[in-house]
Amino acid sequence: MNTLNATHNPSLTSWVAAANQPDQDFPIQNLPFGVFTTASQAQAHVGVAIGDAILDLAVLQQAGLINVAGDVFNAASLNLFINLGAAVWSSVRAQVSDLLRADNATLRDNAALRSQALVAQSAAQMLLPVEIGGYTDFYSSKEHATNVGSMFRDPKNALLPNWLEIPIGYNGRASSVIVSDTPIRRPNGQTKAPTQERPEFGPCKKLDIELETGFIIGRGNALGEPIRCENAEQHIFGMVLLNDWSARDIQTWEYVPLGPFNSKTFASTISPWVVTMEALAPFRVATPAQEPQPLSYLQHKPEVKYGVDIQLEVQLTPEQSQQATTICRTNFKDMYWSMAQQLTHHTASGCNTRIGDLMGSGTISGATPDSFGSLLELTWNGANPLALTDGSTRQFIQDGDELTIRGWAQGANYRVGFGLCRGKILPALAV
Amino acid sequence: MNTLNATHNPSLTSWVAAANQPDQDFPIQNLPFGVFTTASQAQAHVGVAIGDAILDLAVLQQAGLINVAGDVFNAASLNLFINLGAAVWSSVRAQVSDLLRADNATLRDNAALRSQALVAQSAAQMLLPVEIGGYTDFYSSKEHATNVGSMFRDPKNALLPNWLEIPIGYNGRASSVIVSDTPIRRPNGQTKAPTQERPEFGPCKKLDIELETGFIIGRGNALGEPIRCENAEQHIFGMVLLNDWSARDIQTWEYVPLGPFNSKTFASTISPWVVTMEALAPFRVATPAQEPQPLSYLQHKPEVKYGVDIQLEVQLTPEQSQQATTICRTNFKDMYWSMAQQLTHHTASGCNTRIGDLMGSGTISGATPDSFGSLLELTWNGANPLALTDGSTRQFIQDGDELTIRGWAQGANYRVGFGLCRGKILPALAV
Repeated sequence: MNTLNATHNPSLTSWVAAANQPDQDFPIQNLPFGVFTTASQAQAHVGVAIGDAILDLAVLQQAGLINVAGDVFNAASLNLFINLGAAVWSSVRAQVSDLLRADNATLRDNAALRSQALVAQSAAQMLLPVEIGGYTDFYSSKEHATNVGSMFRDPKNALLPNWLEIPIGYNGRASSVIVSDTPIRRPNGQTKAPTQERPEFGPCKKLDIELETGFIIGRGNALGEPIRCENAEQHIFGMVLLNDWSARDIQTWEYVPLGPFNSKTFASTISPWVVTMEALAPFRVATPAQEPQPLSYLQHKPEVKYGVDIQLEVQLTPEQSQQATTICRTNFKDMYWSMAQQLTHHTASGCNTRIGDLMGSGTISGATPDSFGSLLELTWNGANPLALTDGSTRQFIQDGDELTIRGWAQGANYRVGFGLCRGKILPALAV
Repeated sequence: MNTLNATHNPSLTSWVAAANQPDQDFPIQNLPFGVFTTASQAQAHVGVAIGDAILDLAVLQQAGLINVAGDVFNAASLNLFINLGAAVWSSVRAQVSDLLRADNATLRDNAALRSQALVAQSAAQMLLPVEIGGYTDFYSSKEHATNVGSMFRDPKNALLPNWLEIPIGYNGRASSVIVSDTPIRRPNGQTKAPTQERPEFGPCKKLDIELETGFIIGRGNALGEPIRCENAEQHIFGMVLLNDWSARDIQTWEYVPLGPFNSKTFASTISPWVVTMEALAPFRVATPAQEPQPLSYLQHKPEVKYGVDIQLEVQLTPEQSQQATTICRTNFKDMYWSMAQQLTHHTASGCNTRIGDLMGSGTISGATPDSFGSLLELTWNGANPLALTDGSTRQFIQDGDELTIRGWAQGANYRVGFGLCRGKILPALAV
């Protein structure tokens, strides 16, 4: 599955000039899929990001330049396209790569078609890229689980006994997964300080991010038919950035014994572009050693690289100053449990998955304090406020703050990026 | 919302003779909605249960006997119909009631149309009645929460501090909600006895039922726009029976800190007929007194009855003997938190809901040991095995056992029933 082909050639360039800039997300080696509308085109189309533009696959198919069986690009989600299977994903990627190559005149020199098929990203409205039937969130960063356990339970036994055996996960709320740049209203909820006799209902006081990635199911499994670990990656279409917004004070009061609920279900933001596993193939790395060795159903093949080297960072921008501060830099490659292990465990009971399902990694925290993937950890539950570049400080998110996650796999002279996963906090509704 | 009308008249009878029998589920006062196919009709149609038959609404609409705007009955789920709104649900109910009345000759005396429009239930295959975008399970029986807390935590402080303040709920897995009579494969999973150093992976040894009802969202709410308690019932289309199958040994090992996952996601069975809130209107009762009084956002209107008097029972039938034993008799009316409070709390953070979403009540246990809604409680975690009528005993479910939930609201000379919520356990897959 990690085989490289002509689309991965680092020396490829595109006639879309912006795609050849080294520090932007969408070179010709990336070609992520998304869904968009424009002011003049209310019908959603599937497109591919290239430089500062979007290539409209519906227009190209209509023009006979993309060969795919079925009307899958005049669609409000990628699900129909994904349903065609991995060979078609790869074929479309190869066709798009070919059309966009600097030396291919077909579209490059057809001004009329180009003006229809190439849309400026600044002129497009991105939609949620997939219809998400199920959203599962895992908890697979050992550093994150250790930090949380140290803070709220016992620093000497920070990891719970099951953590090293199970890729712990829980069901999230699919209905409130939203696309980047959808504003988020601060949730109201029940909270109770230890000094209070009764809880109160009002605006969350500890609003937080969770820096995550997510993977999108590309091939489902039937109920009662588990996915084996060696086949798990064949079921993954691609990856997105994910911000699993969290209301820490609501979570503290509600989560025992059945887990987080209102503290998470008010919003989860994903980036609009799904970067395919094929695009990420050059960036696969080994995952960290696991001790103890997982039970056999969770064991990796030694010869396969299950990790992905994805650099991640988070910026916080207060409304008033508009000055961004980078509050976290980390990397996906250090996650303890792999996506393959997560999916294997998820389905081991017989649970079915479906095309478009979203599986979150869990908060991605590194080993150093500047690599923690949540304000909870970065400020150690508010004890150590962050100093922002505009002179203000933060324990948790304030109204008007905009949080932006960026992520990219770094190639020699290009990066395979995810675009932005961004959201701004609106004040809570009056109670 | 609890207003009675002509369709509720206890003295109504139908020309479908079986519908006038007192101890069956589908009198003319019920008229629940479902989706079915038959051997000769592969396209799913929406139908209404009447006695031992199904009235095919697609056929009736085609014949001009049901007046509804839109092609909503040639459909694989009720979602399109539900989307038309409460006035249409009520209008269709009134039209169907009228057509089925003993004194209405229109369909009764039209043998040709009747042979098309009236299908024997025994000849139909029932499908999942709604497309379920989100499944949430609550935990709203005080007796159940107390039993579980006594067993696994502290009998003296069995209820956790948040239980009396929050209608505790968690996200379930929508993809594995299945319709009655779908067989369930015993899940494999990780379990760990206290004496074991490492967990093991294999078939669940403590497979259990959870006797529940569920309600179906009839009108969604937008993200960021909570539903107020006084409006909550307007968002409910109807109710079903629900068996939230549970693997207790898997649950024990996995559920801290993020809640149940593989122990629940392998299957949740619902009954095929959605009984409308309008059909249940004559059976509304006051819910139990709540102490302390809930926070204001969860408070009921004193003049409204938020409970429903629904008698429930569970039977276990071993494969070999085929002798059914009733293992539980209880009632939905004793639930501490109402459906209105559940939905209000669910959306209080701004979480959106959508038509077809399923909200489970949580295990419905009564005060007496024969009214507990799970084997976990009925056998006190296996300590007191149940004696079955065929002479065998059960701590938990064995392969081949069939579990059947029945439920009905009892009228003077009729019952508004739910049909069966039934499932049989197949052996686990080889590990």
